[in-house]
Amino acid sequence: MRRTEKYPVTGPNALWQIYRTVSPWKGVKNFIVIQIARYTPLLPVKNWMYRRLLGMKVGKQAAFALMVMPDVFFPERIQVGDNTIIGYNTTILAHEYLIKEYRLGDVKIGSNVMIGANTTILPGVEIGDHAVVSAGTLVHKDVPAYTMVGGNPMRIIRHLREREDEERQ
Amino acid sequence: MRRTEKYPVTGPNALWQIYRTVSPWKGVKNFIVIQIARYTPLLPVKNWMYRRLLGMKVGKQAAFALMVMPDVFFPERIQVGDNTIIGYNTTILAHEYLIKEYRLGDVKIGSNVMIGANTTILPGVEIGDHAVVSAGTLVHKDVPAYTMVGGNPMRIIRHLREREDEERQ
Amino acid sequence: MRRTEKYPVTGPNALWQIYRTVSPWKGVKNFIVIQIARYTPLLPVKNWMYRRLLGMKVGKQAAFALMVMPDVFFPERIQVGDNTIIGYNTTILAHEYLIKEYRLGDVKIGSNVMIGANTTILPGVEIGDHAVVSAGTLVHKDVPAYTMVGGNPMRIIRHLREREDEERQ
Repeated sequence: MRRTEKYPVTGPNALWQIYRTVSPWKGVKNFIVIQIARYTPLLPVKNWMYRRLLGMKVGKQAAFALMVMPDVFFPERIQVGDNTIIGYNTTILAHEYLIKEYRLGDVKIGSNVMIGANTTILPGVEIGDHAVVSAGTLVHKDVPAYTMVGGNPMRIIRHLREREDEERQ
Repeated sequence: MRRTEKYPVTGPNALWQIYRTVSPWKGVKNFIVIQIARYTPLLPVKNWMYRRLLGMKVGKQAAFALMVMPDVFFPERIQVGDNTIIGYNTTILAHEYLIKEYRLGDVKIGSNVMIGANTTILPGVEIGDHAVVSAGTLVHKDVPAYTMVGGNPMRIIRHLREREDEERQ
Repeated sequence: MRRTEKYPVTGPNALWQIYRTVSPWKGVKNFIVIQIARYTPLLPVKNWMYRRLLGMKVGKQAAFALMVMPDVFFPERIQVGDNTIIGYNTTILAHEYLIKEYRLGDVKIGSNVMIGANTTILPGVEIGDHAVVSAGTLVHKDVPAYTMVGGNPMRIIRHLREREDEERQ
């Protein structure tokens, strides 16, 4: 299961009332930083922006591809380990605003993880070390370490033993 | 089944001949409006743009998240009810241009619906009131009211009774 | 199976070391061309850009919809036949940078193919003539000619005979 904290709202849906729960200035500032980072070709600069300007925890030599989209309102809830690859245009969400409540959840991505392009990661999940997430996956639950997953809904494709690391896709 | 009107074409594929079927100026104008709306942080302003500048039917307190992409050529065929949430970067299509024909179809999204991030909605579908569409879903057929769906291909995950509304994801 | 050439790396993950394998200027130049092409409403101009500025092989009257994203580093490995339609925001990848190696693969898309919106095509696949790829598909293996596929993971939906072409979706 995903681990999220739930905050009920009254009146219209939670998204309509979002600026009662998070500052619009934070959203605008984060959005500008994220847009610049999405198109920055220099990976160390990108990591600096994520750490310093968004408060994300980003490990050493974590490599974010073009156009990755971290959560615009709560990026500080995202944690990425060392030597992990986040693929093109991956969306990492730390919030979900529903009709009668909103939910926040930390996203923890381990070290030496590979995440394929166009993946969507939902709030409150944990992806273990050395996991491999195929392109286009909806990560709606935890991914154990040394496991390859993919699909929508996400399923385990196979278990990776350490020695198989090199052949994994 | 999806409800679309089919218009046969002769010669090259329909997309290559698109400007015989819709004005390029309409496309360019709509595209500019959509791009501004995609990045507008103010939800009521966004709804005004959708209603007045694109001709979409948008209900009261319908909340469109960041980067939602309504159909650029036929947005006037999109209808969204009251208090509905459309998630980040959702694509709502009202046309499909195929090789030997093009098809147009209305998209009707009910009230109190929740649509997750990165969802793709195809032309000619109807999503009933209080439905929940998981992130990353391909909505290629109708979604009944009070139903939670997800996946690609889309499947019913569970039926929501009114009292369960609060717990739905 | 996908056909890719594998190049092992030592040290940090391959994406972190990408500019040892491809010139950053090539990436920046290609990115600018791709961004302009993504938003160009004139299809023949777009094809000229793809052919002349990116080195892609693009057939006659191949129609690329809004916001298609060819591989930013190795677009010259992409080949598209005549009269083919590539749907909105489709991603066509010719590279994958993994932890201990990177892989490059040609993408060959035949003639009279239809690819739906928001599809992701992985390196090293071939899509046969007259194939139909549903919206949102992850194309992680070859698609035979005259075949309709869809889903994530991708599956064959049905075999198209020539006479059925007109009704295909």
